[in-house]
Amino acid sequence: MPCRSPSCWSSTVRNIKLIVAYDGSGYHGWQIQSADLPTVQGVVKDVIQHVVRHPVVLHGTSRTDAGVHAAGQVANFQTDCNLPADRIRLAVNSRCPPDITIRYACEVPQDFHAGFSAKSKLYRYRIYNASDRPVELVNKCYHYWRDLDVEKMSQAADVLLGRHDFAAFASSSDRRATTERELFRCEVYRHAHEVIIELEGDGFLYNMVRNIVGTLLEIGRGHWPVERITEILASRDRQHAGPTAPAAGLTLMWVKY
Amino acid sequence: MPCRSPSCWSSTVRNIKLIVAYDGSGYHGWQIQSADLPTVQGVVKDVIQHVVRHPVVLHGTSRTDAGVHAAGQVANFQTDCNLPADRIRLAVNSRCPPDITIRYACEVPQDFHAGFSAKSKLYRYRIYNASDRPVELVNKCYHYWRDLDVEKMSQAADVLLGRHDFAAFASSSDRRATTERELFRCEVYRHAHEVIIELEGDGFLYNMVRNIVGTLLEIGRGHWPVERITEILASRDRQHAGPTAPAAGLTLMWVKY
Repeated sequence: MPCRSPSCWSSTVRNIKLIVAYDGSGYHGWQIQSADLPTVQGVVKDVIQHVVRHPVVLHGTSRTDAGVHAAGQVANFQTDCNLPADRIRLAVNSRCPPDITIRYACEVPQDFHAGFSAKSKLYRYRIYNASDRPVELVNKCYHYWRDLDVEKMSQAADVLLGRHDFAAFASSSDRRATTERELFRCEVYRHAHEVIIELEGDGFLYNMVRNIVGTLLEIGRGHWPVERITEILASRDRQHAGPTAPAAGLTLMWVKY
Repeated sequence: MPCRSPSCWSSTVRNIKLIVAYDGSGYHGWQIQSADLPTVQGVVKDVIQHVVRHPVVLHGTSRTDAGVHAAGQVANFQTDCNLPADRIRLAVNSRCPPDITIRYACEVPQDFHAGFSAKSKLYRYRIYNASDRPVELVNKCYHYWRDLDVEKMSQAADVLLGRHDFAAFASSSDRRATTERELFRCEVYRHAHEVIIELEGDGFLYNMVRNIVGTLLEIGRGHWPVERITEILASRDRQHAGPTAPAAGLTLMWVKY
């Protein structure tokens, strides 16, 4: 339902905040890239433009990678269409593919920016840790069938809590000015056949979550001692950390403002 | 690990039973069709042949349709390779794609046939019945967002219990000699946001489960009264039943012998 009536147009520009959930399996990540690669931002932006009938700039909180999922990605855009926010949500949802949905929409102050205003976000990584292959969870988790020592992974995770220079866990392509970030939560726990890793922080470097997960896996499988994490963190050198864990296990759960 | 050693070959032919689980989203069903369409049977057969190093005929219990899943499809094949059954399972699994796995393998008497020997099987159909789109369950369930009266669906399901001529629920392309089948279980219940339909029977006609689900949905949404199911069953005419429910919600759970 694009707003065709003149009464739908407002002289003041409104700032609309969205909570977006998606299965990232079929997309080249959130961020628009070249025109022929499907991205979540590209799909949502096209649908919004169809509904509000003018070009929009859609800001997202997190540039989730190809194959990474979101339960609560946050985005915002400006519009002079004055449909109630929830009507915009319904109209957008009716045009979204089955693997993308807007969970919530509301009007926010002009200075709200999904990226810059974020105070913290939570990522969850799912490792299916049993010998049977989890065919029901294809693209939803990383299957690691050997034993994992969750207690040791948890001890190593504790070392990362707080404010640190996380350069050792940033992929070399990350060009941001500072590599200092604060982790408010860094937890590892077992839930049935899964080992779950949750990281909440004020910001994340490129591939930081997946590089931390890859490092904790090296410790969990007994390849490295727990103390190694302290050395890796201090080294500020990506080459000392573990491999980048696969994208499919990762979900952006929520963003706080 | 194909069996290369001469000691792996037995003079007696063995009959191996497999329990196969898969996510059917990426396949044109279980049954091998033309060479260029990926099927679960085609993938599993190719991998088995690579392991036992001779051509095999792989029999399955159920020709699950494109997009239908299995937690416990049963299959069997004959081989003169004498690797223990569980070693065959591990070797096959190491070569299967992530959406197919062999849960169990064992040797069975020569007269066992996955299809003809089956006494009953259980199908489960998942309907996600809430307004929010279940992006985490894409290809795993059917999203029906309007209210469903589970009590009425359940009353209608009771009518189908027992031995009946199910011609009204068989797709017209079904050419089997008799359309009489027995249903041992026909249950509808709500679990959190989902409405689950479970059908256990001694056999199923082509599209019978999905046609029964489509009919129960018509009753659940209030389009038809409960009594209509008795008339449909008695009519023996496919045109009186509801539409065929989408494949993605359906899983073959297990087979009994």
